[in-house]
Amino acid sequence: MNEIHYRPIGIIHSPFTEPQGTPIQPASGRGVKGTVELFPAYVGGLLDIEGFSHLILLYHFHRSTSFSLRACPYLDDTPHGVFAIRSPRRPNPIGLSVVRLVSVDDNILHVQDLDIIDGTPLLDIKPFVPAFDAADEIRIGWLEGRIKHLSRKTA
Amino acid sequence: MNEIHYRPIGIIHSPFTEPQGTPIQPASGRGVKGTVELFPAYVGGLLDIEGFSHLILLYHFHRSTSFSLRACPYLDDTPHGVFAIRSPRRPNPIGLSVVRLVSVDDNILHVQDLDIIDGTPLLDIKPFVPAFDAADEIRIGWLEGRIKHLSRKTA
Repeated sequence: MNEIHYRPIGIIHSPFTEPQGTPIQPASGRGVKGTVELFPAYVGGLLDIEGFSHLILLYHFHRSTSFSLRACPYLDDTPHGVFAIRSPRRPNPIGLSVVRLVSVDDNILHVQDLDIIDGTPLLDIKPFVPAFDAADEIRIGWLEGRIKHLSRKTA
Repeated sequence: MNEIHYRPIGIIHSPFTEPQGTPIQPASGRGVKGTVELFPAYVGGLLDIEGFSHLILLYHFHRSTSFSLRACPYLDDTPHGVFAIRSPRRPNPIGLSVVRLVSVDDNILHVQDLDIIDGTPLLDIKPFVPAFDAADEIRIGWLEGRIKHLSRKTA
């Protein structure tokens, strides 16, 4: 099947310049501040975004140069399939984080709860809407009982 | 900045062959059944996925051939920025749906709550984990008061 081509629409800026020490999820990066710099050509797309408290950022794991179908995630010591973990080393290295929107300043979004490395190329921004993106009767497989170790967990 | 290249890792099969009539979100596709066909090369990545009740599907809006920075979403009659709505007509047309995983049969995932058109190229599967992907103290901007119209809403 054909390749799919995307272009970065901006850059994510954070205090984390290396994978080592970067929070493994927004929950472990609680309070961490950063900015999303949207390239000026796209600024018109931000109309009314300030009404949303949380945004879904989709981005390219640019430091991920290969993938593994099975790997040990940070929160476990046995390997799981790549589609059952959130490792950046994925067939298509697309990252997803739900971050808190603090303020909007022209093409700069000030955000919190960042678990993203500085300089990461931004692919998309979507409004986070619980009625769309949350679910009930949830089971979390191998992560059950391990979530409690998440707080402040870094790579 | 350089182009980013991805490859489909599978195909999403659903009862919806045209955008017209496709639910606008998983919540309005509640109970709709479909399958995610993962290409055989990636089947090793499914290890332990059956422990998760819900999956995040990332996919390519293959019917979206252009984008608009501002548009009227289905749930409103005034235009909003593309990053404040979930329209497929995005600068990078990446779709995101949280679906219910019913069963796994080799490289076929049987899922429910589909709002995705038949034949859509799959980019990634991630386990849905509320501690990672949900948030509290949420505001939903222009959608406030409009969510109640979501049930069974189709394009």
